[in-house]
Amino acid sequence: MIQWPGNNRMALLLTFDFDAESVWLARDPENAGRLGVLSQGLYGARRAVPKLLELLDAEKLPATFFIPGWVAEHHTDRCKEVRDAGYEIGHHGYSHGWADAARPQAECDDFDRGTEALDRFLGVRPVGYRPPGAEITRNTLTMLTDRGMLYNSNMLDDVYPYRHVLPDGRQGPIELPTHWSIGDANYTWNSIRHPKVIQTSEHIFTIWKDEFDAHYEWGALFNLVLHPQMIGRPSRVALLRRFIDYVRGFDGVWIATCADVAAHIASLDTKG
Amino acid sequence: MIQWPGNNRMALLLTFDFDAESVWLARDPENAGRLGVLSQGLYGARRAVPKLLELLDAEKLPATFFIPGWVAEHHTDRCKEVRDAGYEIGHHGYSHGWADAARPQAECDDFDRGTEALDRFLGVRPVGYRPPGAEITRNTLTMLTDRGMLYNSNMLDDVYPYRHVLPDGRQGPIELPTHWSIGDANYTWNSIRHPKVIQTSEHIFTIWKDEFDAHYEWGALFNLVLHPQMIGRPSRVALLRRFIDYVRGFDGVWIATCADVAAHIASLDTKG
Amino acid sequence: MIQWPGNNRMALLLTFDFDAESVWLARDPENAGRLGVLSQGLYGARRAVPKLLELLDAEKLPATFFIPGWVAEHHTDRCKEVRDAGYEIGHHGYSHGWADAARPQAECDDFDRGTEALDRFLGVRPVGYRPPGAEITRNTLTMLTDRGMLYNSNMLDDVYPYRHVLPDGRQGPIELPTHWSIGDANYTWNSIRHPKVIQTSEHIFTIWKDEFDAHYEWGALFNLVLHPQMIGRPSRVALLRRFIDYVRGFDGVWIATCADVAAHIASLDTKG
Amino acid sequence: MIQWPGNNRMALLLTFDFDAESVWLARDPENAGRLGVLSQGLYGARRAVPKLLELLDAEKLPATFFIPGWVAEHHTDRCKEVRDAGYEIGHHGYSHGWADAARPQAECDDFDRGTEALDRFLGVRPVGYRPPGAEITRNTLTMLTDRGMLYNSNMLDDVYPYRHVLPDGRQGPIELPTHWSIGDANYTWNSIRHPKVIQTSEHIFTIWKDEFDAHYEWGALFNLVLHPQMIGRPSRVALLRRFIDYVRGFDGVWIATCADVAAHIASLDTKG
Repeated sequence: MIQWPGNNRMALLLTFDFDAESVWLARDPENAGRLGVLSQGLYGARRAVPKLLELLDAEKLPATFFIPGWVAEHHTDRCKEVRDAGYEIGHHGYSHGWADAARPQAECDDFDRGTEALDRFLGVRPVGYRPPGAEITRNTLTMLTDRGMLYNSNMLDDVYPYRHVLPDGRQGPIELPTHWSIGDANYTWNSIRHPKVIQTSEHIFTIWKDEFDAHYEWGALFNLVLHPQMIGRPSRVALLRRFIDYVRGFDGVWIATCADVAAHIASLDTKG
Repeated sequence: MIQWPGNNRMALLLTFDFDAESVWLARDPENAGRLGVLSQGLYGARRAVPKLLELLDAEKLPATFFIPGWVAEHHTDRCKEVRDAGYEIGHHGYSHGWADAARPQAECDDFDRGTEALDRFLGVRPVGYRPPGAEITRNTLTMLTDRGMLYNSNMLDDVYPYRHVLPDGRQGPIELPTHWSIGDANYTWNSIRHPKVIQTSEHIFTIWKDEFDAHYEWGALFNLVLHPQMIGRPSRVALLRRFIDYVRGFDGVWIATCADVAAHIASLDTKG
Repeated sequence: MIQWPGNNRMALLLTFDFDAESVWLARDPENAGRLGVLSQGLYGARRAVPKLLELLDAEKLPATFFIPGWVAEHHTDRCKEVRDAGYEIGHHGYSHGWADAARPQAECDDFDRGTEALDRFLGVRPVGYRPPGAEITRNTLTMLTDRGMLYNSNMLDDVYPYRHVLPDGRQGPIELPTHWSIGDANYTWNSIRHPKVIQTSEHIFTIWKDEFDAHYEWGALFNLVLHPQMIGRPSRVALLRRFIDYVRGFDGVWIATCADVAAHIASLDTKG
Repeated sequence: MIQWPGNNRMALLLTFDFDAESVWLARDPENAGRLGVLSQGLYGARRAVPKLLELLDAEKLPATFFIPGWVAEHHTDRCKEVRDAGYEIGHHGYSHGWADAARPQAECDDFDRGTEALDRFLGVRPVGYRPPGAEITRNTLTMLTDRGMLYNSNMLDDVYPYRHVLPDGRQGPIELPTHWSIGDANYTWNSIRHPKVIQTSEHIFTIWKDEFDAHYEWGALFNLVLHPQMIGRPSRVALLRRFIDYVRGFDGVWIATCADVAAHIASLDTKG
């Protein structure tokens, strides 16, 4: 369905939503006083990102880190390590709050505050956006278009990238869709107030593998959505390494950043 | 317990509840503004149904698609593809709302609106009904009888089809029962507000296989309840293909539409 | 820890909580109008119990059925089949309501109504009780003692049977303890309003097997708590058969009714 | 990252939160009247701890038991067995209530009441603390520092121990971090009001094993958090034995008490 560059028959994105504590603070303001709850997020900044950078470097792989402005502000040095290692940094809002369709201005404000923080603390101007919690409103797409964003990445409605069209007929951003099954959150997210059974690495690998095999057959975009605080636990860095090894056994897999894939899709538009 | 046609010792139904966005809209009106949530449903219409039609066609298998009126209205072309490929189209309400025993008229209104939409947009007059969410009231059976429906399909009270008898003694529709374990929803339904751990294809296959083996032994009706937005994910189309392959290894399995099975059961009544 | 009869080194109870619709009605009165929800319970009466009786008969195994008075009243013929096949019938309340520590009289009333229904409809006077939902109050034990009940079965505080002692020093009933892990409910209970992922038979078998092995080593009481509406699904009758086969591979397992085990424990008391 | 004593390349802690009924009472005061719910906790005191002491003794392993004051008061003899067998006894509050950031005095009061109970009933003065429910506030660390506690153990923010630094610059306790995945609660905790699917021992072992392998590679601290009422079920004592066997296959694993590891880390500080 998609003409991938070169002889590639599918594309694969390694994406990391580097949320740190922001994801916990945004869901429940009371978490600000709960150091134990926050510590799960802090793990991402303190321990997980360095381990993941080490793995990516050893494997010489491109990747995209979606970073909320709050994280750029509170974990600036760690974010600079990501930037300086050459990985794409994407937009992930400021506060990691979920967009509320009833309050479009609040969504824009949080977005703009995120843009400003990424610029101020990291000197980075991202070209793509991942809406926190995969919560997207009609406003989201207009907002991204007005701000010239190249891509959005969190819709679940396809396995091939496509270009959004706004209600007024304008061309919107490129969409890089994904699905809950090809990520880490569904299998590993747990807190004492919202307990969920943690799954084995074998469970997670099997689903990723089955999805990868089918994506390969379909020539689709495999958009792996990871969170350092989850995938960065010791056994799961090994899981990610195992999955990368598996993928490397296939010819014709274009492993790229979100920006590169989006630019490629945009270029097909132009040709088409 | 049932005399199946020919030398068959059991029957198998492949059924698809083609809900698209309606299932999300009906459960929470706020979802209307949440494009990310809706996108999971949209996947069913955009990508899953074509892939499933391809599989069914390659396998030359009959199937029944239960389509809410809302979906016939909003995804008319996709529904026509289902119709034109010759699959049975069953009734699935208009809005995919759950029947409320306290509001029988609302249930009838939604049903009638669904009938009208299926007729107007698809020119189809279904002979059977699958109540959304397996929510069935005493009114449901009277409603179906008054409208001359041949069958209902969502009760969990048996593994053999049977004829409903109304409180007033009238004969109601044929029931084609099923169970949560032989479907996809229990293992795959997930949303950020109601997270549930997504299961491996192996998990799902194993339960279907164990149930199939036992249904075969019992001579029962295996009523597989699938949802394009769930079973149509890449790895799960492969799962369904694997299950079909497994079933094909058995002699004496009557794979049929709901309408055909219901008509057969009705004919036994007449003979009996 | 326990001197089992003969050369036995452990005891095993096959117990069936034959709740039918009562378990759904008791948890939510609105379920009275939800035929789909109730149909899961109805399966127990219509299809599961006959299949389970068939299995028990083929295996020549003793078993105990705990039957709420409501079920004796509404599924009288099915209950008589259980009784006439010679299985022990235990007390399971009337309505399957959970005991409320704040309303001891309500607990007694429901219990007495259950006693009356079992007597009236089945002519049975049970000697033991299983509190619905494993909800037990301080009143429960006094209530059972006052009524001369031999045993109670639902505490989770041991793997060996023991005699309760009341706060006033009186001897209470024998306890036949169990645990959620050695039953079917935890792995299979599911409804659309409280969805839970259904587990494979392999998952369930593995836990039962691991627990059985350890109970065998410990010389303990393995009190298997099953529900016809759950364990009676086609694949799960096969699961139970598989587990019975497994158990039969061991020497020294006393498979008995609850009444027999309780009487044995009581006799040790007397000797001791 | 850490210089472990001798030739060890990692450290492993076997820790048991001996909560008995307190964990149920603290979460819902109504549980005081629910003997069935409490019985799961009682199992820990009555049956599990003796079985675990037997295993630890057979394996000649050090371990740390975190005991709420309430448990020292209500299960004094059992706690004395733990103490007399030479295991470290750590602080686990009095009531097992979760710390509330808005009520620091209540947190201190519960802590001090726990200290007093451990002293009065057991004659023990613990040097380390495990905050119930991994709920930690800013007050927690000040409270521990003011009371001269050597260590805290429940943060999720690292896999290496470290020293806390208070906001005012004072050195706080050593942290012995852990994670939900390397414990028993996430996989086994279940109650009828908050049901969660119980996992197989294989599931649990696999995650512990994968984590252990990675901790070994990283030279990290593997802080296994167990609860007698959960890990003490028959099949799970076997699981723990299996895991210990697995660990024993590795050279260079320092199995120690929390106090010993914390003292070691503190000594590195001094040297450093």
